[in-house]
Amino acid sequence: MAPLSERQSSKGEATRARIVQRALELAARVGLEGISIGELAQDLGLSKSGLFAHFGSKEQLQLDVLDLAAELFRASVFDPALRAQRGEAKVVRLFENLLAWVHDRGQPGGCIFLAGAFEWDDVPGPVRQRVVEWFEKFNAAVARAARGAVEAGAFRADLDPELFASELHGVVLKYHLELRLLRNGKASSLARRAFERLLADAR
Amino acid sequence: MAPLSERQSSKGEATRARIVQRALELAARVGLEGISIGELAQDLGLSKSGLFAHFGSKEQLQLDVLDLAAELFRASVFDPALRAQRGEAKVVRLFENLLAWVHDRGQPGGCIFLAGAFEWDDVPGPVRQRVVEWFEKFNAAVARAARGAVEAGAFRADLDPELFASELHGVVLKYHLELRLLRNGKASSLARRAFERLLADAR
Repeated sequence: MAPLSERQSSKGEATRARIVQRALELAARVGLEGISIGELAQDLGLSKSGLFAHFGSKEQLQLDVLDLAAELFRASVFDPALRAQRGEAKVVRLFENLLAWVHDRGQPGGCIFLAGAFEWDDVPGPVRQRVVEWFEKFNAAVARAARGAVEAGAFRADLDPELFASELHGVVLKYHLELRLLRNGKASSLARRAFERLLADAR
Repeated sequence: MAPLSERQSSKGEATRARIVQRALELAARVGLEGISIGELAQDLGLSKSGLFAHFGSKEQLQLDVLDLAAELFRASVFDPALRAQRGEAKVVRLFENLLAWVHDRGQPGGCIFLAGAFEWDDVPGPVRQRVVEWFEKFNAAVARAARGAVEAGAFRADLDPELFASELHGVVLKYHLELRLLRNGKASSLARRAFERLLADAR
């Protein structure tokens, strides 16, 4: 059996993970700022002070929520795309995984990064910084996949991977709006047709 | 001089308009839900109950804020585009006005409809409904401009105006994210190049 301090620490870790998981569900619905320590504590059968002791600040909890979302995103969107063949297949897989992420994640809720993008664009500090860094990494990863398709000869040599990544993300952002806010039955077909045009122009 | 009741009513209207204007500025920064009656009252030198009496509910104030934003949007984006010649010029004008709206409106703050889109997508009720109706009208108006360009012979006959409008809006959404959250110095050039590709494919 592990020593007592280790068992306590791993119990602490498990509780902390459970709090962050629940906070992510809450944040997807009400935004990162809307996370209420009191509501969380009640949901999880913890005292407010006990819950708070795990993080020390609401900001740290918000950062942990973003880090958990980033892990889930990587596992749902990037990792499966990495396994696809380099070239157009990887770009297509990335796009389809993004649509699935927008469609499935946090029902109800939508993408926490997008909620964060519009909630935090004017609020300086570490949470905004974390959201910004995440989107910068995201942009770079999509551009890298497009560059791979150029190098594999699937996309034309003069394609600008950064522009392609930007256009692809625009299609996904519109899909999010049409699907989640407008509940437009054509959201998916509009997104796929826009993406088909992007691909056709990239080849 | 106007009768007393009329003067009182017009004074009431002016106060109400001043409250809604200030609430819009606040909402652009903190979201519609973040509007605090107490903060508003303090800002405007009114009592909370006096301010509240003008609307009867926070929800009514939120609806009034959206209606004011819709008026400003129409005056900044749609009205000037209406005066442009039908055809490609009108579509280009609409796009440029949209970029200017995202760039200029509510510094700091960003577009209140987009903030609303991500804040309210899972909150049923009249505010969500108002945001949804606004975006539906917006989509229809952009598609109408694209249809006008087809009818004027500037865009190809088999262009799908709804798809074109959806793609154009995707470019604007990405521009908002890059400009306001990421403060990407290339936001504008990426948006314009994406739009140029859209136009080239539409001709």
